[in-house]
Amino acid sequence: MTAPLTALKAALSEIHALEGASHLLVWDQHTHMPPGGEGARGGHLAALKNVIHQRATSPELGRLLEAAERHLPELDPDGDDSCLIRVARRDFERQTRIPSDYVGRFAEHSADGFAAWSRAREANDFQLVRPFLERTVDLSREYSGFFPAAHVADPLIDHSDPGWTVATITPLFSALREGLVPLVAAIGERPQPECGFLFGDFPERQQMALSLKLAERIGYDTARGRLDLSLHPFSISFAVDDVRITTRVKTDDLTECLFSTLHEAGHGMYEQGIGAALDGTPLASGASSGVHESQSRLWENLVGRSRPFWDFAWDELTTAFPAQLSGVGADEFHRAINRVQPSLIRTDADEVTYNLHVMMRFDLEIALLDGSLKVSDLPRAWAERIQSDLGVSPTGDADGALQDVHWFCDHVGGAFQGYTLGNLMSAQFFAAAQAAHPNLAERIAEGDFAPLLGWLREHLHRHGRKFDDHRLIRDATGGDLAVTPFLDYLRAKYTPLYGLSGA
Amino acid sequence: MTAPLTALKAALSEIHALEGASHLLVWDQHTHMPPGGEGARGGHLAALKNVIHQRATSPELGRLLEAAERHLPELDPDGDDSCLIRVARRDFERQTRIPSDYVGRFAEHSADGFAAWSRAREANDFQLVRPFLERTVDLSREYSGFFPAAHVADPLIDHSDPGWTVATITPLFSALREGLVPLVAAIGERPQPECGFLFGDFPERQQMALSLKLAERIGYDTARGRLDLSLHPFSISFAVDDVRITTRVKTDDLTECLFSTLHEAGHGMYEQGIGAALDGTPLASGASSGVHESQSRLWENLVGRSRPFWDFAWDELTTAFPAQLSGVGADEFHRAINRVQPSLIRTDADEVTYNLHVMMRFDLEIALLDGSLKVSDLPRAWAERIQSDLGVSPTGDADGALQDVHWFCDHVGGAFQGYTLGNLMSAQFFAAAQAAHPNLAERIAEGDFAPLLGWLREHLHRHGRKFDDHRLIRDATGGDLAVTPFLDYLRAKYTPLYGLSGA
Repeated sequence: MTAPLTALKAALSEIHALEGASHLLVWDQHTHMPPGGEGARGGHLAALKNVIHQRATSPELGRLLEAAERHLPELDPDGDDSCLIRVARRDFERQTRIPSDYVGRFAEHSADGFAAWSRAREANDFQLVRPFLERTVDLSREYSGFFPAAHVADPLIDHSDPGWTVATITPLFSALREGLVPLVAAIGERPQPECGFLFGDFPERQQMALSLKLAERIGYDTARGRLDLSLHPFSISFAVDDVRITTRVKTDDLTECLFSTLHEAGHGMYEQGIGAALDGTPLASGASSGVHESQSRLWENLVGRSRPFWDFAWDELTTAFPAQLSGVGADEFHRAINRVQPSLIRTDADEVTYNLHVMMRFDLEIALLDGSLKVSDLPRAWAERIQSDLGVSPTGDADGALQDVHWFCDHVGGAFQGYTLGNLMSAQFFAAAQAAHPNLAERIAEGDFAPLLGWLREHLHRHGRKFDDHRLIRDATGGDLAVTPFLDYLRAKYTPLYGLSGA
Repeated sequence: MTAPLTALKAALSEIHALEGASHLLVWDQHTHMPPGGEGARGGHLAALKNVIHQRATSPELGRLLEAAERHLPELDPDGDDSCLIRVARRDFERQTRIPSDYVGRFAEHSADGFAAWSRAREANDFQLVRPFLERTVDLSREYSGFFPAAHVADPLIDHSDPGWTVATITPLFSALREGLVPLVAAIGERPQPECGFLFGDFPERQQMALSLKLAERIGYDTARGRLDLSLHPFSISFAVDDVRITTRVKTDDLTECLFSTLHEAGHGMYEQGIGAALDGTPLASGASSGVHESQSRLWENLVGRSRPFWDFAWDELTTAFPAQLSGVGADEFHRAINRVQPSLIRTDADEVTYNLHVMMRFDLEIALLDGSLKVSDLPRAWAERIQSDLGVSPTGDADGALQDVHWFCDHVGGAFQGYTLGNLMSAQFFAAAQAAHPNLAERIAEGDFAPLLGWLREHLHRHGRKFDDHRLIRDATGGDLAVTPFLDYLRAKYTPLYGLSGA
């Protein structure tokens, strides 16, 4: 390794360590922190982020980058070092293009966002946060202006899903919507399965024990992670060997803890699978929010809601809840956990309707950013779109435009596309893994997840942030991201489940 | 507030916030971190400490201090601002006097200390760490040389107990030893109480619930703290409103969890009681290791091992363990938890013999530092002293000179005096609180700890680091620290317990 590269790595690794420390503060805030801790925690995080920002944008780091870049021609372009230099350059450019006075103004503005959103949602009154959201849209446009881009939303999208643009996302989303709307309609004409047994008395301790056991069985390593409770489930990494997940429990609902845990375990296994050589560097993280979501949804839905999985897990489940599930069979359970029902709330949506919720938000964000939709018209536009896509109408703002916190704690733009990109990827990755391991379903039914996890580790996890989504997807699946694998997956699954014709 | 003071406070508060963050990393490391996290955690802490050290020793901070100090003559000398400036100056001087090359050399040396100590203790062989300890003594002497001092140990003592010196400690410790040795001997001639019922089957969950309940009842605020398990109990503060404690459980021993929790709750209540105006500043911490230990030992021993406390807590205890304590009365229990028995291990010692263990270490540290004792002679000197003070002889190095980790993870010097200073203070503070509240024992028997805690808050807790021990003790008790209150307390308690003559 050359001296300039060594010096660059040392500087980056110090920044990465401070970020790991800041992640621990966030984890604790949402898991174990007593109520009294809230007051000081913001100051602790701000002080740490301030140090990180200073180092990540320092002229010294710029010089180290330039010196290392002079060695790029000598390096394997796909090697860890080349990728590190490229990703570090991208991070440095993004951070240094944003003026520090903007960072301060946006922080000041958004500090109040969560509280304002909570109040407005409680009051079921969008007008209470309209001025706040108008200012957020203005600030998001200003942010966009710091970067060269074809579309005002592109820099905001690029922040969470590097390499993706409005131009590359829009055709995918249009095709997906065209496939989904008729499928939802067809399912809507069929009778619904019995689901009552999913709701009853499921004590927290048993739910947590079952969820943890299943997470460990699919491959989440609790020697290098742990499961805790939090208000909203999340996963967070401090290092490749310390990646933690959280879940939540509804004691009258069997599915909440179970599938939240499998979902977060999917995120966690991705970060635990990053190559050891990348640990402690800026490459030791997921490639994008889309790829991250592909891993969580793959384990939650394509595995966890599959029929073979419940061949394996049925004993565990009925041992944990013998009385509550007495008389219920695995087929019946499988139908119940795959019930499709158009609804108003994204986070409650099944896997068929879910992406219609997401794509609607994506389109509305873009319309707000390009000025074709005024903030004051958002509730009306929301109601029209969800009626046209899903055939349901919000009863007010709380189950309409105020249901998600995203636009009230960050920018407008880039907040949602990753969810649907991830769902598309999950099916395409799973199909490729199946092609490589034709007996994948049988292995899952036996509780053997090694072939699937091995494929994901080999083609995705170990690379961390080395490559962008397009490169990762092509290398892993032999083609660009498409909607066909996902739509094929849904049709193949739901045609027999709902007895649809014309499969 | 003047502009220079505002600028100084901002700089100090950022350092304090980063220290709060580093404390969280330490807390997590000892409570919830999965085994895999160990590898990266050291790097996270080192990066954070490096940033803290840079800021705490920066020429900029020196300039801010000088500017603020010019306003000292205008300020109330006992006000928060004056004290802040004085304490910040003391911290700055200490940190800047130590050359950074020394910091690096000492860190490199001590990095291996814990592992080396563990191996040697396991092998019961002091010779394995003799060279390591010789080097520690040399480095400790070098550290001392960075400061002007009357005695080589003084700068090391001053680090944890500011204001104390060999000259001020030695006469106290001599007088205490003179009082303790005959008391131990007199107790040794009397029959021992029955203690068998303290050892049995005490499930972890009930022990934790009972300990937490009692900690809350004495005044530890779990809305601003929490209790977790760790290998070694400790307390740690991230902010005045987030002070956490840990304990440990032996399921065959009723006393371990109970008294560890009361001890740590005493530390925690001290930090929770610091004045809100000091939060986020370097004054928001305990005055010294001695005053800190006075609070933990006061609640553990003067309250928790008192007869009135078990009037109040007897119902809680026997409700938690009805079968295990069947047939045992509160008097019998009180005698059992106050059994005095000379032993080899400091951390197992009762409150009568404990300080003999500590003072012996204090004298040995000083002898090592001033050269009158060679490291190679330490095991022999240890055996002689414990035989002469306690009448017992080590069976080897593991229960002799290798039993404590202190000299193997930090300097030799200053590691132990705080324990005994704290015990002396605990009795003197308790006596002063009793003088102010003559019915204190009755209140404790009723489970009303407000008068005692109120007195401690008013005279000690709220001041944080504003004043040194001497000032605190004089203001709180009307006199300098003395051995009489502690010896009086022991004699008054143990004369009836052991039926000693000549009370």
